[in-house]
Amino acid sequence: MERENLTMLCDFYELTMANGYFLTGKKDTISYFDVFFRSIPDKGGFAITAGLQDVVEYIQNLHFSQGDIDYLRSKKLFDEAFLEYLREFRFTGDVWAIPEGTPVFPNEPIMTVRAPSIEAQFIETYVLLALNHQSLIATKANRIVRAAEGRVVLEFGSRRAQGASGAINGARACYIGGVNGTACTISDERYGVPAGGTMAHSWVQMFDSQYEAFRKYCEIYPHNATLLVDTYNTLRSGIPDAIQAFNEVLRPQGITKCGIRIDSGDMAYLTRKAREMLDEAGWPECKISVSNSMDEYIIKDILAQGAQIDLFGVGERMITAKSEPVFGGVYKVCAVEDAQGKIIPKIKVSENVGKITNPHYKKVWRFYGRDTGKAIADYLSVYDETVDDSGDFEIFDPDNVWKRKVVYDFEARELQVPIFQKGKLVYDLPDLETIRAYCAEQVDTLWDEVKRFDNPHAYYVDLSQKLWDIKQAMLLEAGGRL
Amino acid sequence: MERENLTMLCDFYELTMANGYFLTGKKDTISYFDVFFRSIPDKGGFAITAGLQDVVEYIQNLHFSQGDIDYLRSKKLFDEAFLEYLREFRFTGDVWAIPEGTPVFPNEPIMTVRAPSIEAQFIETYVLLALNHQSLIATKANRIVRAAEGRVVLEFGSRRAQGASGAINGARACYIGGVNGTACTISDERYGVPAGGTMAHSWVQMFDSQYEAFRKYCEIYPHNATLLVDTYNTLRSGIPDAIQAFNEVLRPQGITKCGIRIDSGDMAYLTRKAREMLDEAGWPECKISVSNSMDEYIIKDILAQGAQIDLFGVGERMITAKSEPVFGGVYKVCAVEDAQGKIIPKIKVSENVGKITNPHYKKVWRFYGRDTGKAIADYLSVYDETVDDSGDFEIFDPDNVWKRKVVYDFEARELQVPIFQKGKLVYDLPDLETIRAYCAEQVDTLWDEVKRFDNPHAYYVDLSQKLWDIKQAMLLEAGGRL
Repeated sequence: MERENLTMLCDFYELTMANGYFLTGKKDTISYFDVFFRSIPDKGGFAITAGLQDVVEYIQNLHFSQGDIDYLRSKKLFDEAFLEYLREFRFTGDVWAIPEGTPVFPNEPIMTVRAPSIEAQFIETYVLLALNHQSLIATKANRIVRAAEGRVVLEFGSRRAQGASGAINGARACYIGGVNGTACTISDERYGVPAGGTMAHSWVQMFDSQYEAFRKYCEIYPHNATLLVDTYNTLRSGIPDAIQAFNEVLRPQGITKCGIRIDSGDMAYLTRKAREMLDEAGWPECKISVSNSMDEYIIKDILAQGAQIDLFGVGERMITAKSEPVFGGVYKVCAVEDAQGKIIPKIKVSENVGKITNPHYKKVWRFYGRDTGKAIADYLSVYDETVDDSGDFEIFDPDNVWKRKVVYDFEARELQVPIFQKGKLVYDLPDLETIRAYCAEQVDTLWDEVKRFDNPHAYYVDLSQKLWDIKQAMLLEAGGRL
Repeated sequence: MERENLTMLCDFYELTMANGYFLTGKKDTISYFDVFFRSIPDKGGFAITAGLQDVVEYIQNLHFSQGDIDYLRSKKLFDEAFLEYLREFRFTGDVWAIPEGTPVFPNEPIMTVRAPSIEAQFIETYVLLALNHQSLIATKANRIVRAAEGRVVLEFGSRRAQGASGAINGARACYIGGVNGTACTISDERYGVPAGGTMAHSWVQMFDSQYEAFRKYCEIYPHNATLLVDTYNTLRSGIPDAIQAFNEVLRPQGITKCGIRIDSGDMAYLTRKAREMLDEAGWPECKISVSNSMDEYIIKDILAQGAQIDLFGVGERMITAKSEPVFGGVYKVCAVEDAQGKIIPKIKVSENVGKITNPHYKKVWRFYGRDTGKAIADYLSVYDETVDDSGDFEIFDPDNVWKRKVVYDFEARELQVPIFQKGKLVYDLPDLETIRAYCAEQVDTLWDEVKRFDNPHAYYVDLSQKLWDIKQAMLLEAGGRL
């Protein structure tokens, strides 16, 4: 399947700036940009990063066609030498990133780009678009999966997704976050997200009776017979007709596995009644699926009320992350190299303290307790620092430096891995099952306090003393300009 | 630009049902499906329909590749004769739709599909995805444009869009809804949405001083110099440096048009101060742009507080319709033809009264007052009815039939137009400027009461007596089954 060329999916200012860097002799200045976010959707305790594979494909495919260049020329803004330069434009820099499926926290670099300034700047729009969208959906899906407490969750939202890639990449992100499959066929074909599905209300309406519709379906798909029972009346005709079809078609074949789906009505009440009716009729293995406006909040509520549900079909509220449909990742310059290759840290100051950036080319560490396997804290250092995890190690809250803590018996692991080096892909993209399993395993390293839905514990993202000192000195200096 | 093949962007159940219709001899049964929605986002008074062009391109491109068929075979669910049939699968039916840019209301068919059941069913997922997404964004954009009361509104949201098509088609939908342009370059190249942009904070940080960054920018783009003034401190250094750059670079060239952009801080306060400073410095034509978390609510608020703004850059809250990111369009069977070609109406009953559908193959009419040019009501009739608008005409509320109203001196226009006939495109797709102008003109036909942001007047969507009678008879009959 050929990938659409999305090189021109960039904010126009990437191009006006690129032309400007070209004309001011700054195009080859090596710049460092960090991708990070400032707050976790739904007031959660962590996010799940996703979208890296999409970014890799985008970067590998980056090129301007003749049509693109002709279009840009028609804007009468760009220097002809710059347009000529775009013909050969490729990404030649370095990228490091935290692998897909990793729990991540505010203010730490999910991705770091080092490249000549035009290239580093140019990829901003798509990198953010991909990481923001897919991290948003993976994070939301993980919340929903955790709320379902081990029950099956399927992604059903394509028809309400915000565009084709919203559906396709969204389903992949949901799978990373832990759902068991999708209704989105192309996400299976393209990415291996297991796709499945049975019938709509229109199937039932297309036959002379509901019973006939069910019977035909069971005959065609005896091993995949999940019947939608709420077209007319769930308890009075839907479940009785389903039981009759199961009895007449499946029972003689010795098939005991089947399912019903309820798409409207009060799920706590209907599923308890449905379970009773199915059990009484001798169909204890018949699974009950529900699929109407589900999200983590309603799932928790109806499970607390004793709903008898085996499978949740989750649509618009997951595929759009409806309760908070934006992941606010940003792309900020953190350093440049001078002509001698010396790395000069850069900071974005702001009257809004929350918008001040962490300067410099950095490393991101996660400390895991050797006894518990649990994540203790994340730690940002300058690129040339290492962490000695052979003994005790003192960390401190960067906003309240008197809050200090000694960690011990821990292992420090770097979170970012090399993705591109000098424009060449050096990362072996994991397959989707591996990413999904890794995500589940990494979420397990978080304490329950961090995973709480309401008012979770704020996980520590601390700075090394050296990084903190550099940042403070830069803020002091910038203060004069403020 | 070649279009990605999105045939497989379908819910998997479209395929299990298709195989089922194939095997039960129902594949050629002519079915009618309506697309409609049940409630207007943000409790608004109307929605704007968009996405038709995308649906047209999807239908024209509909085909299964060998790879698609091999993938489906691997699922071990589908009959081999069905897979063979898919090789030649094309859309051969009829489609009618309300043109893009039209204000639309709950429960009226935005699109109607008449086709052999497999084809009519199969296109459900993508048709809904495209119409839901793009109508959502066009509706939101129109709200924001109306809140800006004639000021320029630009779409800036690509980096927070939900995937590539969220950005690309989203920008197009925003333009239909009335924005003046976008930052999304590819939406300009592909669809002609005017794209523009100037600089990010990183441009300012890349130079030794803010003044130098501004000066260079003015030198390169003297006719397009909008300077981002909030990297350090808007009032103390940003605007003074901008004025100095304007004075030294633009003034000698006799250029009086330029701009500043503010991306953080209190916009009501900062823009009033900025206006004073620019006017005092002799730059009355310098436009003030703002771009931080804008939507219709904050725009109305800060304008009421006297903010001095010429241009709004609107990002995540428009491109994701953040306050309500789902447009709930559905695709429901409304009739089938029997072997003799007789049209048999179908209804979806529900214990939830709001989910009961309007049966039958219908026409959608809008009544315009001949004196005012304003839209009075919409009216659904059976397909074989016409409306005599030469005299008085009585309509009634379908939920409260005693509420009756006589309309007079009106013109009845059919809203749906033919798009496909027997699989052939018969609709001349309007260009984007035409759609945008048509949208503005049609919104003007709505009374202010319908356009109100808070608690708008509920516009009438009535049924003909004949359609109402058919629906009631079907409900009575279905009542026995409930």
